[in-house]
Amino acid sequence: LAIRCLSVLVCLSLVSGVGLAGIAAAPAPSPSSSLLPDAVRERAAALRDDALAGTRALEIARSLSFEVGPRSAGSPGDRAAVEWGLRTLRGLGFENVHAEKVTVPHWDRGTIAGEILSPWPQPVILASLGGSVGTPEAPAGNGIEAEVVGVPSLAALDQLDPARVQGRIVFYDVKMQRTKDVAGYRDAVPVRGAGASRAAKRGAVAVLIRSIGTGHDRFPHTGAMRYEDGVAKIPAAALAPADADLLAAALASGKPVRFRLRSTARMLPDAESANVIGEIRGRERPDEIVLLGAHLDSWDLGTGGIDDGAGVAIMTEAARRIGAAGNGKLPRPRRPRRTIRVVLFANEEFGTSGARAYAAAHAAELAEHVLAAESDLGAGRVYRLSSGVAPDHLPQIAELAKLLAPLGVSPGDNEAHGGSDVAPLGAAGVPLLDLDQDATSYFDWHHTANDTVDKIDPKEIDQNVAAWAALAYAVADLPGDLGRAPAGKGRE
Amino acid sequence: LAIRCLSVLVCLSLVSGVGLAGIAAAPAPSPSSSLLPDAVRERAAALRDDALAGTRALEIARSLSFEVGPRSAGSPGDRAAVEWGLRTLRGLGFENVHAEKVTVPHWDRGTIAGEILSPWPQPVILASLGGSVGTPEAPAGNGIEAEVVGVPSLAALDQLDPARVQGRIVFYDVKMQRTKDVAGYRDAVPVRGAGASRAAKRGAVAVLIRSIGTGHDRFPHTGAMRYEDGVAKIPAAALAPADADLLAAALASGKPVRFRLRSTARMLPDAESANVIGEIRGRERPDEIVLLGAHLDSWDLGTGGIDDGAGVAIMTEAARRIGAAGNGKLPRPRRPRRTIRVVLFANEEFGTSGARAYAAAHAAELAEHVLAAESDLGAGRVYRLSSGVAPDHLPQIAELAKLLAPLGVSPGDNEAHGGSDVAPLGAAGVPLLDLDQDATSYFDWHHTANDTVDKIDPKEIDQNVAAWAALAYAVADLPGDLGRAPAGKGRE
Repeated sequence: LAIRCLSVLVCLSLVSGVGLAGIAAAPAPSPSSSLLPDAVRERAAALRDDALAGTRALEIARSLSFEVGPRSAGSPGDRAAVEWGLRTLRGLGFENVHAEKVTVPHWDRGTIAGEILSPWPQPVILASLGGSVGTPEAPAGNGIEAEVVGVPSLAALDQLDPARVQGRIVFYDVKMQRTKDVAGYRDAVPVRGAGASRAAKRGAVAVLIRSIGTGHDRFPHTGAMRYEDGVAKIPAAALAPADADLLAAALASGKPVRFRLRSTARMLPDAESANVIGEIRGRERPDEIVLLGAHLDSWDLGTGGIDDGAGVAIMTEAARRIGAAGNGKLPRPRRPRRTIRVVLFANEEFGTSGARAYAAAHAAELAEHVLAAESDLGAGRVYRLSSGVAPDHLPQIAELAKLLAPLGVSPGDNEAHGGSDVAPLGAAGVPLLDLDQDATSYFDWHHTANDTVDKIDPKEIDQNVAAWAALAYAVADLPGDLGRAPAGKGRE
Repeated sequence: LAIRCLSVLVCLSLVSGVGLAGIAAAPAPSPSSSLLPDAVRERAAALRDDALAGTRALEIARSLSFEVGPRSAGSPGDRAAVEWGLRTLRGLGFENVHAEKVTVPHWDRGTIAGEILSPWPQPVILASLGGSVGTPEAPAGNGIEAEVVGVPSLAALDQLDPARVQGRIVFYDVKMQRTKDVAGYRDAVPVRGAGASRAAKRGAVAVLIRSIGTGHDRFPHTGAMRYEDGVAKIPAAALAPADADLLAAALASGKPVRFRLRSTARMLPDAESANVIGEIRGRERPDEIVLLGAHLDSWDLGTGGIDDGAGVAIMTEAARRIGAAGNGKLPRPRRPRRTIRVVLFANEEFGTSGARAYAAAHAAELAEHVLAAESDLGAGRVYRLSSGVAPDHLPQIAELAKLLAPLGVSPGDNEAHGGSDVAPLGAAGVPLLDLDQDATSYFDWHHTANDTVDKIDPKEIDQNVAAWAALAYAVADLPGDLGRAPAGKGRE
């Protein structure tokens, strides 16, 4: 049975002997041993340094990419991925390995073809956005043929004379900016989700977007879109960057631009998938959970090497090393106080079905989740630790950040969002930690056919494993916990 | 009527007053003014420097990529490219603009699909090699399904027990090396042309190759293959790099690897295309020709932005600037002594039909071609001048190289091959000059869907124009010519 703290402050005082008054008056550094005992710190540091000498993460990512490959929700690859997850976690020595059923939407991309008919007849390379309807099959099966109207943003569409949109194909030419963090993506991506219904309300017959990505290689980027209730569903597709340039140039010529689109995309009946779970059981408080998440599904165009094969591999390998730690500088395995639970979530990409199913199925034990974290931004180097905890626990976070400083990880703010799959847990009060990754190159490959495992740098993925192994171990073996997250965390 | 030199030595002595004995005794530097008169040198240098300030080359390449796009031999794009060429050369002020009919083979890629059936079921990304047959349509239309046998080279295939090849799909896993020049490509490419027949002789039912390229983006590379007479024609396709990695890993697992291939590639009846020609007529010897070549066709997967949109743009713009030179430091236009002839060759990619047609149609005037040169390696920076001339003309080549030194161009050897389209002219005695380009990145994009005009660096293409404008002008305006190329030039 787990001994749990009734509140953050009681917990801290029990562990460290620091009185309530002292904490309240000075949230500044307490003696560090009180926040992160030497034994925990040393073991965490050894896990960190051992991982830098080489891990099995790339091997795990490669296994998932090669042996399963594309695994979008509801597809045969999705089922194969669940089997892979169970087999892999068992093979790596995890305990309590099991699948928890998740019902997922099942969208089928079918085939797509697009061509400029005039002024410069030429086929283009494009991909349906996830969830898009296809073009009408009847009567002639010739798809949609219409004139194109271009706009530089969602807002610009609203400024257009409705007569210019009615019966047309709307082309949103939004250019994503390359940033180290996800800011560039966050700013550009709304057009993907909302563009179709926004145009359909004004009578458009289809939408095209410039792919949401930073690369200039000729890959169209997919990703989820959604239809508003009560608005006509029109097809939505993303053009590869060069093809967006071409369409923009055709529009800039001043001549009418006609376009033909054919797509057989469609929704199929819901399907069954699963969250795959494995644990390193805690030695003292096994019911308290440090949750390390990643998502098992991928988009269908690539093999999900980075999204989220990398995250699956990082979290699985970090937990494995904590459980198996007897190598390198660590004289013998020792379980942490709490349980490390790896959760490989079903269907993050097309509606976070697995996240919602997990939060519902585990609602009763969320109070015993002492941390939730996710790795879902490829294998780029970790550069910052952000938290989503009650402010009085920030001194502990500062101690954890020190542990990661040798990896080049800086302290961040307390605005961690936790990643799509664990955000609902943060909203339910589970403390969140983010290890922010350098995403400078990530959006060159994200959601394209080019998301393959060769994009992972072995040194970089090992640095991720080092950071997560040290951090997860430290939180799981702390005498005290991180309290509860304040309202508003994890909702982003 | 042109005044032509009867021989190199007579010509030199006429122009410079240097006697036969002097030349014969000392092929080392003569007074440079005798080889490259000051007036020619200065004008060439001005053309060179003006081009560095900005040219229309990228605009021309963009026009071809956007307004025509894919233009493989015999396709509608091929016909559109001929129209574009005529329209563009006329629009840029060329003289004697016309098309010369060329009969071209017409291969249709159709569609292709490949998948690993076992041990790891997964679709792969691949492309038919140019000229490949498709898979059998009858009876079930299920294509070819067979076990795969992997070999690291053409030579390794010959070492295999024939029983291991019979009825199998052969996978040639040859990795191309990245080099600044074309050496990496030259070493790797034979497997593409010869691999199918070599395997068919041993009973193989299809061949797969790792794409011949240096990139690791998930594009399959196409390119011409050929069947040996009397050998069964079997389908040949190239896997994208990540898919070649996957297939190699599946083979390395030791389990039998089964593969299914379906392709509708096929040959169609020969079609009509054309070499497109335009000139800047010479002021003194208009029948003497400085030929600047590039090829108008492209492979069908990309838009031919670099192969050979870049070359078309470089040679067209270099010639245009010579004809129009009145801008920048050049006070007024002045035609060079000889004619600059731009030839945009039909179908280089699938059998050099245009090159052979030009050499045949112009056989009678090849003796009056004083130079043939081609730009067909994208827009990478020029770094070396190589020649294919009689050795006694090397001092002139050295003078020309000095003219290009400010562009970072070094003197090369006398082994120029001239490019596929002008090599037959070299073999007929026409002097050749190559401006060797930095091809470090070129084979990342070459023959893929990613060959688009955005891969051109504006500064680099302008440097190419600067070099060719200076060089072509100097040769066209020299009092003497470059003699005749010795036997053996241009055959590579």
